[in-house]
Amino acid sequence: MAVGRFYLSVLALSSLGSMCILFTIYWMWNWHGGFAWDGSIHMFNYHPVLMVAGMVVVYGAASLVYRLPQSWVGPKLPWKITHASLHLMTFILTVLGLVAVFRYHNDNHIANLYSLHSWLGITTVVIFACQWFLGFAVFLLPWASMWLRSLLKPVHVFFGASILSLAIASVISGINEKLFFSLKNATKPYSSLPGEAVFANSTGMLVVVFWLLVLYILQASSWKRPEVGITTEGQPLLRERE
Amino acid sequence: MAVGRFYLSVLALSSLGSMCILFTIYWMWNWHGGFAWDGSIHMFNYHPVLMVAGMVVVYGAASLVYRLPQSWVGPKLPWKITHASLHLMTFILTVLGLVAVFRYHNDNHIANLYSLHSWLGITTVVIFACQWFLGFAVFLLPWASMWLRSLLKPVHVFFGASILSLAIASVISGINEKLFFSLKNATKPYSSLPGEAVFANSTGMLVVVFWLLVLYILQASSWKRPEVGITTEGQPLLRERE
Repeated sequence: MAVGRFYLSVLALSSLGSMCILFTIYWMWNWHGGFAWDGSIHMFNYHPVLMVAGMVVVYGAASLVYRLPQSWVGPKLPWKITHASLHLMTFILTVLGLVAVFRYHNDNHIANLYSLHSWLGITTVVIFACQWFLGFAVFLLPWASMWLRSLLKPVHVFFGASILSLAIASVISGINEKLFFSLKNATKPYSSLPGEAVFANSTGMLVVVFWLLVLYILQASSWKRPEVGITTEGQPLLRERE
Repeated sequence: MAVGRFYLSVLALSSLGSMCILFTIYWMWNWHGGFAWDGSIHMFNYHPVLMVAGMVVVYGAASLVYRLPQSWVGPKLPWKITHASLHLMTFILTVLGLVAVFRYHNDNHIANLYSLHSWLGITTVVIFACQWFLGFAVFLLPWASMWLRSLLKPVHVFFGASILSLAIASVISGINEKLFFSLKNATKPYSSLPGEAVFANSTGMLVVVFWLLVLYILQASSWKRPEVGITTEGQPLLRERE
């Protein structure tokens, strides 16, 4: 029953996540001329797509790895590697997303990192990078003691969900900011809610629904991996036998 | 030890919360001419202050009532009433904050509810209103069965933290939007980071730090009220004897 509901939630989440990415692509493609890795505004267009795909959708999927019932039994290592790899994928998409906006700004003499969106966004990415490297060093590499792992685990779990929430605040302020920019001199301004505004606002709200569902699945106690003692918990990479 | 750290966190939280409100007041007072309940831009200036005070600071305080060690022993009712009253205060501040922006818009023929900030903000307030009335009806009034209370409690707890996070995303996008508006025709634009931009961006980051600390205190297991069975859990208002 609980497993059935879990997979139903995963199905809803996959659909929502795909829609978030596809809607962002369509927004940039239909109203902003599509994509090109050339330093122009078409390079900027990669920024929202890569951030939504990386810091929201793949991040959300990565954070839910230990909720899969398959991960509850047997060795934890394959799931740790899956968790770390998906988050590495998030990190790569995010760095590419940052390159897209920085190169567009630099090539067009636009200042970097002045808006609150950018301050929060870059802070989120820095905290995420620290979280990834610390997680890799302590939970995957074999040197860390059980004591250190037990100490770091609640911090890792706390920042795991917090970083996603910070990413959502960054994405919402980013979509809002982009719409004020792009509809500034439009015949139909943002305040008259033209097609682009309704579509991009809806994309933002969709991102919020996706995030709420991730948080819900994360905290639902019946979907959590049962704790089986500190030995499994601290299973390091190089001591694994399979 | 845990209690000492709790009160240290509460002290930090109180300082941060006060700073969030004072910084927002100072931003509106120093750069936007202060406050007046007259339908002008000075009426709008109440909007950010009331939203930060209501949906962030008082909401954060209200959500932490059951973490006070005093609330762990004895009857739960006084704490339920404190929790509901603080959230009612949040709701009143929030409604006043909405009146401030709607009346400013209406008196100056500016469209309402078009930006993603406003879509998310109004959604957050509606969810919060539902949460408050449902919480009041089920956890304070005497008619609800223990079964219903047990069913609703995890949902109430989940939305409690989620609404605060939604409020943060609304506040961040709101500060960002306001800065783009107010520095549009300024001699020093937003992109050159004039004093107002640095100050308001910092206020936004402070709000984020406050929110992170609230979430941290909320989820820290050693600060949670120990569960003492369903009887205390379901203590209704009209059956209370004190």
